[in-house]
Amino acid sequence: MHKIEVEMGKDIYQANRKIAENIRKMLDERGIMAIDFMGSIGSGKTLIIEKLIELMKNEKRIGVIVGDVTGDDDYKRIKKYGVDVVNINTGKECHLDAHLVEHALEDLNIDEIDILFVENIGNLVCPADFELGTHKRGVVVSVTEGDDMVRKHPLIFQISDFIVINKIDLIPYMEIDMDRIMKDIERIAPKKVFLTNARNGEGIEELAEWLLN
Amino acid sequence: MHKIEVEMGKDIYQANRKIAENIRKMLDERGIMAIDFMGSIGSGKTLIIEKLIELMKNEKRIGVIVGDVTGDDDYKRIKKYGVDVVNINTGKECHLDAHLVEHALEDLNIDEIDILFVENIGNLVCPADFELGTHKRGVVVSVTEGDDMVRKHPLIFQISDFIVINKIDLIPYMEIDMDRIMKDIERIAPKKVFLTNARNGEGIEELAEWLLN
Repeated sequence: MHKIEVEMGKDIYQANRKIAENIRKMLDERGIMAIDFMGSIGSGKTLIIEKLIELMKNEKRIGVIVGDVTGDDDYKRIKKYGVDVVNINTGKECHLDAHLVEHALEDLNIDEIDILFVENIGNLVCPADFELGTHKRGVVVSVTEGDDMVRKHPLIFQISDFIVINKIDLIPYMEIDMDRIMKDIERIAPKKVFLTNARNGEGIEELAEWLLN
Repeated sequence: MHKIEVEMGKDIYQANRKIAENIRKMLDERGIMAIDFMGSIGSGKTLIIEKLIELMKNEKRIGVIVGDVTGDDDYKRIKKYGVDVVNINTGKECHLDAHLVEHALEDLNIDEIDILFVENIGNLVCPADFELGTHKRGVVVSVTEGDDMVRKHPLIFQISDFIVINKIDLIPYMEIDMDRIMKDIERIAPKKVFLTNARNGEGIEELAEWLLN
């Protein structure tokens, strides 16, 4: 059973990468900068995208692809900002793939977008293996996920270009060793780290500046 | 790509169910009661199992199978309690399956166990589809995962026998609508709910009693 999955897997990854390359080329031709936001359920991906939209929308035309297993809660949250947004429901799949993003792009006005945010399905395992053709990939984790989250899911941190540690306002109420997280990041995946409290916007401006440069 | 995955999927689910049935039979013959703990990364699965061990270990002989993508952090935490424990690393798989559990059982002294706790891989998507032959399945979520977690992942709540909502001590520090969660549960998956703070043990006794009866 596992053998078949692995062999199938290789082809799936290759096919996905090829579509991702096409997406990347298409985005580049139109001058669109795209960012894939990965991370656990409830880590704050949607709220961070909302806060980025608030900060950027006067200067940039923004498009959003929102992925969820089911439902359109996040889609509705983004829609309120008046930006161009498409919802993808994966059914049982635990990640977006390039093929799904390719179709979602057909439903966006891509000639009128400067920045594309993609919100991936919420978990720290599956999305890592599937590039979506974006220019940057980031993983959003919350301090509530425990100070062993990096060592437990090294791959998703390693393939990310940036790491957002969110809900830092909850640190005083928890037993969490932030030093351990930062040391794990340095050892396992030394990437740019942003400490944020998306609720009040703390740290989002720094993230926005970094993404735009 | 997707078509192939779906067709493959059916066979995988059937094969898994068959092994799960064998496991269940084997556990029943030995009078072992087994519980599958699913839930997101950082929801508190390990700590809840630790607290259950503390409560039960004088009366029951306990075995634990700990699943993680990589590493042995949770294994070490459980090992300290002096119970029989086996670690499963799935590599890239986002769920345990019956085949992996079957092998793990070979490494446990199953003739000297009354209760078997299985800690599944942390996420709310993949584990739902793979029965492990346990007598009960439960999903552990934390209030920090957002009050839309049930409607966003209906399947895992529906296939669970019980739901643990953990970290209730953090409610005062968050914008979370507990009413919305409870209404979603009632509407989508009306199961037995336990409200816990695993850190100080609140609610764990009630869970332990329910599991033993």
